[in-house]
Amino acid sequence: MAKKRVLSGMRPTGPLHLGHLHGVLQNWLQLQKEYECFYFVADWHALTTEYENPRRIPKNTRELLLEWLSVGLSPEKATLFVQSAIKEHAELYLLFGMIVPVPWLERNPTYKEMLQNLKNKDLTTYGFLGYPVLQAADILIYKAEKVPVGVDQLPHLELTREIARRFNYLYEREVFPLPEPILSQEAAKVPGLDGRKMSKSYGNAIFLNDSEAEVQKKILYMVTDTERPRKSDPGDPENRCVAFNLIKLYTPQERIQEIIEDCKAARLGCKDCKRELAERVVEALRPIWDKRVELEKQKDLFEEIVSEGNRRAREVAQTTLEEAKEILWGISYF
Amino acid sequence: MAKKRVLSGMRPTGPLHLGHLHGVLQNWLQLQKEYECFYFVADWHALTTEYENPRRIPKNTRELLLEWLSVGLSPEKATLFVQSAIKEHAELYLLFGMIVPVPWLERNPTYKEMLQNLKNKDLTTYGFLGYPVLQAADILIYKAEKVPVGVDQLPHLELTREIARRFNYLYEREVFPLPEPILSQEAAKVPGLDGRKMSKSYGNAIFLNDSEAEVQKKILYMVTDTERPRKSDPGDPENRCVAFNLIKLYTPQERIQEIIEDCKAARLGCKDCKRELAERVVEALRPIWDKRVELEKQKDLFEEIVSEGNRRAREVAQTTLEEAKEILWGISYF
Ligand code: SF4
Ligand code: SF4
Repeated sequence: MAKKRVLSGMRPTGPLHLGHLHGVLQNWLQLQKEYECFYFVADWHALTTEYENPRRIPKNTRELLLEWLSVGLSPEKATLFVQSAIKEHAELYLLFGMIVPVPWLERNPTYKEMLQNLKNKDLTTYGFLGYPVLQAADILIYKAEKVPVGVDQLPHLELTREIARRFNYLYEREVFPLPEPILSQEAAKVPGLDGRKMSKSYGNAIFLNDSEAEVQKKILYMVTDTERPRKSDPGDPENRCVAFNLIKLYTPQERIQEIIEDCKAARLGCKDCKRELAERVVEALRPIWDKRVELEKQKDLFEEIVSEGNRRAREVAQTTLEEAKEILWGISYF
Repeated sequence: MAKKRVLSGMRPTGPLHLGHLHGVLQNWLQLQKEYECFYFVADWHALTTEYENPRRIPKNTRELLLEWLSVGLSPEKATLFVQSAIKEHAELYLLFGMIVPVPWLERNPTYKEMLQNLKNKDLTTYGFLGYPVLQAADILIYKAEKVPVGVDQLPHLELTREIARRFNYLYEREVFPLPEPILSQEAAKVPGLDGRKMSKSYGNAIFLNDSEAEVQKKILYMVTDTERPRKSDPGDPENRCVAFNLIKLYTPQERIQEIIEDCKAARLGCKDCKRELAERVVEALRPIWDKRVELEKQKDLFEEIVSEGNRRAREVAQTTLEEAKEILWGISYF
């Protein structure tokens, strides 16, 4: 039986950090084993919020692709491509726009929320309003059957399903499947250096492209149990130590138990404890860094991987678009 | 000095009648002498209102191209093409959408008016709202400097100019010219068979593809001076005769004077008068019909003309789009 097809994308808006690694990429790595995956850099989507300053997007796009490959996404297992390289998305977006009622877009909760949250940007644009139409085109042009989403993105996917349903209904053929969500198990929440959710804008992130020295330094500066000024004071890792959340993510189970005991018994100092953590994080990142160095040496190989991904995506996208247009117009036409 | 470039289009929504011939096409015939003209069949625009029943559009598109060539639009003088064959329009539409504020679209008077007038259709779609964005892409992708418009379409063209201005401003380069209107002199208003404006939906039109017999019949059934039941009653052509409006359009000046005199003096019967008119209309249409028969015999030539027009349009569109993207992203990219 053919593998089901999965589509997912990321916006090239800046460097990836551990939050992306644990929240998204490790999920993608799993999915590429079970499904036929299409992963794309959503550079046109980035334009919806970055249109006043789009010139970082191309650099971020290359960076994102490099990171994807570095963490182990494989061009043999998945199709990695760049949205704007596949013109067919724009054409299907235009066609879908003709059948999508504006009220469907206005009542989209993410739309309202983003207008609220990003008040420093002028997001009253036509493109921003039509974000879910473009997203539907992204998904349906590959006839994806599964889309990994967080709970908060379910309304977007439902809109994609409504658009597919409406197209199929209006033109009387089951052209598009109704894609189903793969709800990402609430990924181990990655705490930032200050205990809040890890985020570039909070300045509390460890980036995948940080150097070893940067990672060491960031971790050694992390806040620990503030009610434990001296090593000889007993600590409370589970309730009072920000670093401990990261320790849990990067330390084997038995060693976590020892740390808890030694910290509570005032046998383990925070400096040593964080040194150990830093070492573990560095060891976890090292294969990613090594892969990245390797890729940067083979610039041609990288370009080839991206071209090949784009080529494969384009082939599928063209086939779907031709089919959709033939059904829409009633004949094959220009 | 290079000729200035003109862009104009027509929607493929049905057969052309004398109203189109005198109102639009004769204007286009003039323009193709003075300008470098790009004339396109706006099949994507037709979708904005016909999306529930789009399957007539491809046939209407071919029909429209045939009529254009039949009336004398020349592939040597103008570039005749089909909008949906030039994917670049869709991509530029997407890019423009990112920078166009929704309020610019909502306050467009034509938008409000059409929502009112076409109440039997559901026009609250995203595509219909974005009609002027697509129109801006149509015009600006050819860097057209002149656009023939009626007074009522001036707000649309102003929106295109605003979009060009905004793009040039945001990305700091004069990529797009600000196209100027060529205001069509209020074309001789063509009265329909019942005296109202000629229109397909009024059922009062003489179509360019009517047969000679149909034209004869339609004209002979026209209402004349209703207060003149017999030839021996004096007529009042200028105030009471619907047919007279058409007579004025198709009859040489001195002969018009004679008709007025003979009608007023009850020397000319309505039947004879309309026979003469029918003959004149038929003679005016005959070269169009002959050209059309010729074209229908040379199906390959017709296909070749359309392909060649599309090819030429695509070449210009691709160049502009590449330039626009390079300036938007800051580099040449995928
Ligand atoms: S010893 Fe480790 S777990 Fe305990 S408070 Fe210090 S950093 Fe946190
Ligand atoms: S004679 Fe001619 S102009 Fe006079 S009323 Fe009849 S149709 Fe009209």
